Amino acid sequence: MKKKVNAAILIIGNEILSGRTQDKNIAFISNWLNTKCGIMVREVRVIPDIEKIIVENVQLLSRKFNYVFTTGGIGPTHDDITASAISKAFKVKYEYHLEAYSILEKYYGKEKFNDGRKKMAKMPRGAKLIYNPSSAAPGFIIENVLSLPGVPSILNSMIENCKRYLIKGLKIHSKTINLFTVESNIAKRLGQIQNKYKKFVEIGSYPFFRLGKIGVAIVTRSTSQDKIKDVHEEILKLIKSKKIKILKI
Amino acid sequence: MKKKVNAAILIIGNEILSGRTQDKNIAFISNWLNTKCGIMVREVRVIPDIEKIIVENVQLLSRKFNYVFTTGGIGPTHDDITASAISKAFKVKYEYHLEAYSILEKYYGKEKFNDGRKKMAKMPRGAKLIYNPSSAAPGFIIENVLSLPGVPSILNSMIENCKRYLIKGLKIHSKTINLFTVESNIAKRLGQIQNKYKKFVEIGSYPFFRLGKIGVAIVTRSTSQDKIKDVHEEILKLIKSKKIKILKI
Repeated sequence: MKKKVNAAILIIGNEILSGRTQDKNIAFISNWLNTKCGIMVREVRVIPDIEKIIVENVQLLSRKFNYVFTTGGIGPTHDDITASAISKAFKVKYEYHLEAYSILEKYYGKEKFNDGRKKMAKMPRGAKLIYNPSSAAPGFIIENVLSLPGVPSILNSMIENCKRYLIKGLKIHSKTINLFTVESNIAKRLGQIQNKYKKFVEIGSYPFFRLGKIGVAIVTRSTSQDKIKDVHEEILKLIKSKKIKILKI
Repeated sequence: MKKKVNAAILIIGNEILSGRTQDKNIAFISNWLNTKCGIMVREVRVIPDIEKIIVENVQLLSRKFNYVFTTGGIGPTHDDITASAISKAFKVKYEYHLEAYSILEKYYGKEKFNDGRKKMAKMPRGAKLIYNPSSAAPGFIIENVLSLPGVPSILNSMIENCKRYLIKGLKIHSKTINLFTVESNIAKRLGQIQNKYKKFVEIGSYPFFRLGKIGVAIVTRSTSQDKIKDVHEEILKLIKSKKIKILKI
């Protein structure tokens, strides 16, 4: 029987912490895990390119969650230390992965296969490859930690290749109603509905601005479609009683 | 004398963890702290709307870093539990803040000042307000924790009002060179330069795709402008020796 499966994301990179680069991987990975694998992301951390900090976080998160996805730090330069840090976290050798070495050697050609590129074939001993259809350099999985690159377009191209390593969880269903109202207008009753269904359904309330008007998106999420339906009906009653306009998108 | 000041960001919100919403606050706050306050963000966490988890993270991060910025969960609905959780984290009462109450009452008018809106005036005892020029509901600071809303446009409008509570750190300078080359071409020498200056300068190497070509952005960051200049000259020598084209933007 399927059950709840969770994950954490560990974003490794000074460029995200400095604000230089806008992260796009959190939303992409979370959404993919949610909709394609029934896996809920329960924590995200962004940390600097510092070995000790990577080791600590990999150890902690891999114990706490079913899966950990790391992004960033698996390229050819000095600041790419994810693979060696994960080796330390699991106390295994950091060494050439023969298949990765051969993939990269073939991709670049023997003459252009320099030290920087060879570095991308070094991984924790026992790691399995996550193939990379866009730029050859593979990611890897060891224990329950999956390491992907930081460049969003490359990461996106590799994500389907993670699937074979993941146990799928219960599908998480969600339903959104967009309303032209303010949160405080529905807050009290919505809180009561959430309280009634707190064991089964998560209700989120998110204000937005659209077409110059203020609105609220009410999002219900659950592994049970029936419970979502029940909650949805109660919310529709609330909307009707307040004469609120539903926004169709 | 100014010294290094650091911060953490705690993003509170199921909507970010589910991938429904693309976070924009990490990059905005980090960049603002960096460029306007000389404060470096050293860790970011995204966590769900669960009281126990918020309390633990606020306690831990507020001990570990000079400042903690939280975003999200300070609105009128049932899932807005940041202010009450922070009260628990600091073991103080969660109660009406008189000035916040009066600001909100004036903004909405007595008749429309319902329970949901009143909730936005409840804060940890002893909190000071962070004024909100766009939608009235203030954020707050208690100890070294600053709480801001999750909606980016509102957060952005409030950020300047955080300044009065922050001790500025040493200004962090940075210099970027964009090159039409691949990382592995410069990886070895760049690593040597980083090693030589490791105490003073952080060198990052970030691949990009532009105009159909592959490039690398080399970013040097330091509190010392002189050291950045030294590193920059060494990088220019490396570029010249490899006959790499610099991209002017």
